Amino acid sequence: MASNLMGAGYDLVLHNRTKEKADKLAAEGGGEVAENPREVAEKCDVVITMVPGPTEVEAVVSGGDGLLEGIRKGSLVIDMSTSSPTLARRLARTARERKASMLDAPVSGGDVGAIEGTLSIMVGGEVKDFERARPLFEAMGNTIIHVGPDGTGQVVKAANQIVVALVMEAVAEALVLGSGAGVVLEKMLDVLSGGLAGNRVMEVKREKYLSRRFEPGGQVKYHRKDLGIALAAGREYGVALPATAVVDQMFGALIARGRDGWDHSALVTLVEELSCRDNYGQGRE
Amino acid sequence: MASNLMGAGYDLVLHNRTKEKADKLAAEGGGEVAENPREVAEKCDVVITMVPGPTEVEAVVSGGDGLLEGIRKGSLVIDMSTSSPTLARRLARTARERKASMLDAPVSGGDVGAIEGTLSIMVGGEVKDFERARPLFEAMGNTIIHVGPDGTGQVVKAANQIVVALVMEAVAEALVLGSGAGVVLEKMLDVLSGGLAGNRVMEVKREKYLSRRFEPGGQVKYHRKDLGIALAAGREYGVALPATAVVDQMFGALIARGRDGWDHSALVTLVEELSCRDNYGQGRE
Repeated sequence: MASNLMGAGYDLVLHNRTKEKADKLAAEGGGEVAENPREVAEKCDVVITMVPGPTEVEAVVSGGDGLLEGIRKGSLVIDMSTSSPTLARRLARTARERKASMLDAPVSGGDVGAIEGTLSIMVGGEVKDFERARPLFEAMGNTIIHVGPDGTGQVVKAANQIVVALVMEAVAEALVLGSGAGVVLEKMLDVLSGGLAGNRVMEVKREKYLSRRFEPGGQVKYHRKDLGIALAAGREYGVALPATAVVDQMFGALIARGRDGWDHSALVTLVEELSCRDNYGQGRE
Repeated sequence: MASNLMGAGYDLVLHNRTKEKADKLAAEGGGEVAENPREVAEKCDVVITMVPGPTEVEAVVSGGDGLLEGIRKGSLVIDMSTSSPTLARRLARTARERKASMLDAPVSGGDVGAIEGTLSIMVGGEVKDFERARPLFEAMGNTIIHVGPDGTGQVVKAANQIVVALVMEAVAEALVLGSGAGVVLEKMLDVLSGGLAGNRVMEVKREKYLSRRFEPGGQVKYHRKDLGIALAAGREYGVALPATAVVDQMFGALIARGRDGWDHSALVTLVEELSCRDNYGQGRE
């Protein structure tokens, strides 16, 4: 994402908790390296954060040597991490108290989308800030949608992660049932893809399901973090999420098995093990 | 389906529990009308059944005046209903004892696919019987796949219905969460469609979600029947289906509310009511 911004002609001040990463990028693309988030904020009028989750967002934005210590009047902070809607709203309020502003702008599209500049970006916050940030978003993504006020970008991302998780559980239960009855996996995937059951997960993860190699891709641990955010949002907004709660527990059981770094489609291995079946039942040829 | 077979040049002997339907079709298409399934079997070398579920399949095939009472040596019975894999295997064995044979060949594609002759047909049984039936299938569908031995067509259909139900639950939880936070539904559907969360349900049912008009389409009561078959298959094959079990209960709650004849995408109305929200929260414009 930083490379794509530099490629679009922006001057960057870079900071990463692993300093070597920032140094490497600066050497390649010509950006300046800052010692901490505060220093980034002191030097820039737009600051973008991209970290694993809400704990890290809070540390980087409002922790010691954080962005808000150095923020300039009129600056714009854009958090592109997948984080909590509540935190997004709180930080946006704090930024406004400092005469700055903030957008929540999480993305989907994975490593590939980030590298190719084809991310989907779902943005919560004020429209004028969204318009100000649009040229930056256009350097990083191709589907860029303002979805509502502060925090709603994070809610839509949480909703997205609910759908992906439940579709993965659906495909897992279907594949283990079918192969348990002796149906070959390829045929299952072909038939299911043809009708109302068709979905992007079966297309994108097809080779992982067939090869049983679950190199990520999206990792189990991050997807569970996202479901935790979704369930917390459900508590806050008073929305019951019964199937999400079940699949969250399934991801928890995967992590308990040490598969936190596997691709999230590895949910199928848990459904298989629940049923004490190996290799999706006897359905492999 | 019968019209498409007649259109392809086959002579049909028709029977329906509602006699007027058979009479009407015979008047239009030139088929003969039989008084009961036995009489159909006495007059035909291939017999196709299409009824709501396993109870009706059993009655029509092995009940009084049923097909097996009139079946001829060498005849082929094709059950295209969505029924139970266990029943399919048992009836196929019985047919074989009578020197006949049987395929389970459930379909997906809905009313529209049946009328247009574009059904997906997933077939369990012996390959030689599948090849014999292929020209008939080609008059009714365009995706025709032999998936395995007796009963496996029904298992694959059950797996298909698992995926459709869980995707509907996923979309429902996502939409109610998003609109509960104030996000407009159209934007939710647009963003979710763009990435890994994309699925056929959101495309096909989009207008129902937006208009909140849930005329069927696939009905809640039939989809719940299908999930009952899937869960029973899970018991038989020893496959745990935790999320399917939850969504089966959700469909049950919809039926308790008198919505058995609504389109299955009306699952969203239950998620909404669980959260005591009207009109998908306050998210509608």
